[in-house]
Amino acid sequence: MTVKEELQGYWGFVRKKLEAARVKIWSVIEVTTPEASYKGVLLPRTDMGDDKHLILKLDTGYNIGVRITDDTNIKELGYEPGLYAIPEIEVEFNPKKPTVFLIGTGGTVASRLDYRTGAVIPAFTPQELFSAVPELAEICNLRTNLLFEIFSEDMTPEYWIKIADTAAKEINSGVDGIIIPHGTDTMHFTSSALSFMLRDLSVPVVLVGSQRSSDRPSSDAAINLISAVRVAATSDIAEVVVCMHGSSSDDYNLIHRGTRVRKMHTSRRDAFRTIGDIPIGLVQNDEIKMIRKDYRKREKHGQVKLDTKLDPKVALIYTYPGMEANVIDHLIDSKYHGIILAGTGLGHCPKTLLEPLKRAIEENIPVAMTSQCLYGFIGMNVYERGRDLLKIGVIPCKNMLPETAYVKLIYVLGHTKNMEEIHKQMITNLSGEITTREPYSGYQILQGDVEKYRKD
Amino acid sequence: MTVKEELQGYWGFVRKKLEAARVKIWSVIEVTTPEASYKGVLLPRTDMGDDKHLILKLDTGYNIGVRITDDTNIKELGYEPGLYAIPEIEVEFNPKKPTVFLIGTGGTVASRLDYRTGAVIPAFTPQELFSAVPELAEICNLRTNLLFEIFSEDMTPEYWIKIADTAAKEINSGVDGIIIPHGTDTMHFTSSALSFMLRDLSVPVVLVGSQRSSDRPSSDAAINLISAVRVAATSDIAEVVVCMHGSSSDDYNLIHRGTRVRKMHTSRRDAFRTIGDIPIGLVQNDEIKMIRKDYRKREKHGQVKLDTKLDPKVALIYTYPGMEANVIDHLIDSKYHGIILAGTGLGHCPKTLLEPLKRAIEENIPVAMTSQCLYGFIGMNVYERGRDLLKIGVIPCKNMLPETAYVKLIYVLGHTKNMEEIHKQMITNLSGEITTREPYSGYQILQGDVEKYRKD
Repeated sequence: MTVKEELQGYWGFVRKKLEAARVKIWSVIEVTTPEASYKGVLLPRTDMGDDKHLILKLDTGYNIGVRITDDTNIKELGYEPGLYAIPEIEVEFNPKKPTVFLIGTGGTVASRLDYRTGAVIPAFTPQELFSAVPELAEICNLRTNLLFEIFSEDMTPEYWIKIADTAAKEINSGVDGIIIPHGTDTMHFTSSALSFMLRDLSVPVVLVGSQRSSDRPSSDAAINLISAVRVAATSDIAEVVVCMHGSSSDDYNLIHRGTRVRKMHTSRRDAFRTIGDIPIGLVQNDEIKMIRKDYRKREKHGQVKLDTKLDPKVALIYTYPGMEANVIDHLIDSKYHGIILAGTGLGHCPKTLLEPLKRAIEENIPVAMTSQCLYGFIGMNVYERGRDLLKIGVIPCKNMLPETAYVKLIYVLGHTKNMEEIHKQMITNLSGEITTREPYSGYQILQGDVEKYRKD
Repeated sequence: MTVKEELQGYWGFVRKKLEAARVKIWSVIEVTTPEASYKGVLLPRTDMGDDKHLILKLDTGYNIGVRITDDTNIKELGYEPGLYAIPEIEVEFNPKKPTVFLIGTGGTVASRLDYRTGAVIPAFTPQELFSAVPELAEICNLRTNLLFEIFSEDMTPEYWIKIADTAAKEINSGVDGIIIPHGTDTMHFTSSALSFMLRDLSVPVVLVGSQRSSDRPSSDAAINLISAVRVAATSDIAEVVVCMHGSSSDDYNLIHRGTRVRKMHTSRRDAFRTIGDIPIGLVQNDEIKMIRKDYRKREKHGQVKLDTKLDPKVALIYTYPGMEANVIDHLIDSKYHGIILAGTGLGHCPKTLLEPLKRAIEENIPVAMTSQCLYGFIGMNVYERGRDLLKIGVIPCKNMLPETAYVKLIYVLGHTKNMEEIHKQMITNLSGEITTREPYSGYQILQGDVEKYRKD
């Protein structure tokens, strides 16, 4: 494991204590608390830790977390530099198995705990991945390319293009599926972008992430990776999809259409939800089960059309009561090329915004309306405000998600600046982002306590 | 019924046809389609109609909808001005019954179809309401005040204050509950605002709306009104709550805490959902059932403390990949007093925003973080970006909803400009907006198709 800094993974209170004791990762230290004394090697930590514990590799071979308080004393006894590598498993290319190409975007795909040292070793090359997650070798041949390494919150349209480029090249060279490990924060924006840029897809393109770091016992990383690779290698889907936990246990994974999925929880493993529709399918017990029939099917000799013309000068604005006109005026004055509104209810906004929105459209800045309710169609013909907005030329985005509409306007503006053509494209379903109706079971359902009381 | 304009309720195609025929509401017209010919009085329409039908009162007394196409001919035969009033039922004040005060904010509370004319008559005075919804008289004495009439998307902090003022005055004069019919678009913003402004509540304050106009057969207006009045009159809750349909049938109503509710669907009757928690209770078959115990209880002789000091110069900003610094710079330059971010995941934003956010906080503009996932706690200690944001002073809003945090910052800034005090107030639970944990059943649950396939 590469240790990038001397106290990797430690922060806050515990870091201050370690700094004061002048120790670093791999130092042999003695930690004395009011209750006990421990001797061992200070191990690096990965994400998700608190700032109250350090991890010690004891002589017995066990790792323990020691809670540090003001009364704890830390003393360096020596230093034992770590030299860790994941054992690489050479797996011969099997021409009978499908080949999946993995595009790395940053973050840990998989990792393995080294039992000798207790260190967490990130795995990336096919050999490392096969060693960390042996199940993968049974499914497919694997090739990998670490395209870049960023936090998913720093993803930009430029990175979307890089991913689409690589995916298209590999698909057109004959791989059977693409898998893209991705930070979860903005995974649904990227899946939307790829859905628009990879036209006439012939194989699955699967985004996958983990809500829990792969070194934690509760991690969803391995199961998500195995399920996603299975979908990429063997499913008959030829769409951009997101494959993540379907429940908070390790029960099954869902396959979500890339343009209709959203991260709906900050921490649960089943954070990703298909909104206003039902997922395409699920993966359970090593088996892919399709829930729907209306998805694009895999083709043997298809060639994907790469279309990466984007214009990222677009803003996504959620409206709120009391919102002032200056927010929109600023976008016009800053020469934005397009505005997506996430309005209230059926597609409304405060009347204070009518004038600046009219000015935006008069200056050829398209304005398109979605709903911050997230579920349901907008209906701008129903009430006066909606009709006023239609009258000034606001584009009604049907049941497109705000985030998807943002990505789509970037895509559409890359192709045309003609206001009529933009309007037409925005209300036309290009990649599953607009549906004709929302099924009853596409809405969130109450359960548990409420149902119990209701039936009492 | 007051007809505010000549073709009230008609728009689009059908309106053009009516204009071309130079007819107006209450005109006696002859409508000839390729199939048939109808004679009758043109009736006004209320919200939610399409633009393909007109409503005709036939001589038989029946109303019919006639589909209008290009081939339809419309001819005026005469004019019969409408003069409609709802029959008023005088109900004697019953000292044994609780008294509920209804604060009108705009929109139709209830309405009644006049069978003689077919006109839809909005009801507002107690006498009209008792006539339109006779069940109300059995529950309580009713007093009403139409405070103002606006669309809910035009609600502002100034209106929140007017409502709070009136509610406090009436509560402290001894009414047993307040009911506030409100447009659904921004009802959850208003319920949050009242939750902060009405301190030490002693009786229920119930917001209610309808997702379907009260003249439609599928309307939820009457049931919502009856349930809400029942909660205001007889429940032992002393909080600001929202009372709306719990399912898409007329099965039961839910009672949501005012600071933890959000409109989650553009059109379904069960659009309102308690987020990250379970509702306080439900109303079913004329009965109120409490689901939770941890709510503020009604007091006999309590006095509400009115606290309407607000500073509305706050912006609510959802972040997105590729978001530019200028959006934040603009808020600083425009002298905003506070910024609520709805970041991604556990509370992150693109690195492009770090510098302007730092500048905002240095210029004493508090910045507070919520998550656009809506469900779940933010956790800004987990990843580097979160820690960087904490370091520059961004306030971590735990599991507060973005919309609630927006309202709360307006409230807090009305009381202090001290950055430390603002931080302290924002992370302290004042009105149920922050909870200690989210129950398992507080997250949206999949059902139907997915579960069926999963169990196959």
